[in-house]
Amino acid sequence: PTLHRHTSEAMAILAGDLLNGLAFEVLATRLPADLSAPVAAELATATNDMIVGQVYDTVPDPDDARPAYQRLITIHQHKTASLFAAACRMGAICGRADRLQSDALGAYGEAVGLMFQVVDDVLDVTQSTEHLGKRSGKDSEQGKLTYPSVLGLDGSQDAIRKLQAEALDALEPLGRRGRPLATICRAMAARTR
Amino acid sequence: PTLHRHTSEAMAILAGDLLNGLAFEVLATRLPADLSAPVAAELATATNDMIVGQVYDTVPDPDDARPAYQRLITIHQHKTASLFAAACRMGAICGRADRLQSDALGAYGEAVGLMFQVVDDVLDVTQSTEHLGKRSGKDSEQGKLTYPSVLGLDGSQDAIRKLQAEALDALEPLGRRGRPLATICRAMAARTR
Repeated sequence: PTLHRHTSEAMAILAGDLLNGLAFEVLATRLPADLSAPVAAELATATNDMIVGQVYDTVPDPDDARPAYQRLITIHQHKTASLFAAACRMGAICGRADRLQSDALGAYGEAVGLMFQVVDDVLDVTQSTEHLGKRSGKDSEQGKLTYPSVLGLDGSQDAIRKLQAEALDALEPLGRRGRPLATICRAMAARTR
Repeated sequence: PTLHRHTSEAMAILAGDLLNGLAFEVLATRLPADLSAPVAAELATATNDMIVGQVYDTVPDPDDARPAYQRLITIHQHKTASLFAAACRMGAICGRADRLQSDALGAYGEAVGLMFQVVDDVLDVTQSTEHLGKRSGKDSEQGKLTYPSVLGLDGSQDAIRKLQAEALDALEPLGRRGRPLATICRAMAARTR
């Protein structure tokens, strides 16, 4: 069971808050002095984006007249892709990568992050609760804006292929050192749970 | 009305999370490079303490056999005093204070933070909802461990005097530069809402 079922919603929120705080404590106390601030800035910006995405998702802006697809992308760029991109750029900073490498990693993370969410939405529709290990079909029950509800199932599969290609293209400048990330990307595109 | 009444509990939690994230973003991007990490470490440790205090408060540890007063102090040292102390020490770091000054400010913050909570608990019992601007008598209704329930009203007033004296004593090494903080401490001890 998820933590909020195992204990309570209050304790699950507190556990999340604490893990978030511990991340910043680690960055402030365990990194070389010149890396601490730039890495913490990436993490802070990404977690703030994530919260903003959750706000868009929780209380849709009634004045947002853009098509559903644009609204959906805005939610997941903030809620998911930003943290994936930041995770990649934090690695770049710690590895003292140059600008070209750092931008490549950031673009990879952004594409993989969005792809992760499309795959998640597709699995919610196509897989059983037993196979997923969490209740499927929940998104449409809750009337949530999802990729399948906006693009259809075929359109969502196309989006996964497109984002996978985008992620792999982004790795080009890294040459063979990008291969482990390419493997991760392919596994994430092909996952069924 | 508090934010969770004005909007919803979900939005209030998200607003709190975002303000927390923005604080770390400011520390990572707006401070001189050598101050960013030590100040962020103080804030992270204090917010983590605050969360731990909230956990103790939300789900009392059934194996904690210490007297109620000790359990109460543990909650509020974590939940309130740690952040007051950190706020003072963060100022000390930014002002490039020496160790003596920094310790003095930390001890002041710790005492004032605990005092703040005792005053809060006392006002919840002695003041009307109208005067406080928030509903009074809520703590005892909820069966919460409070200073008046543990020490009685007189004992709580004694604790306020003792903590105020401790805070003012801690300022001694700062000489006249500690006076504004002494004024704040006296105002906090005397507040009625």
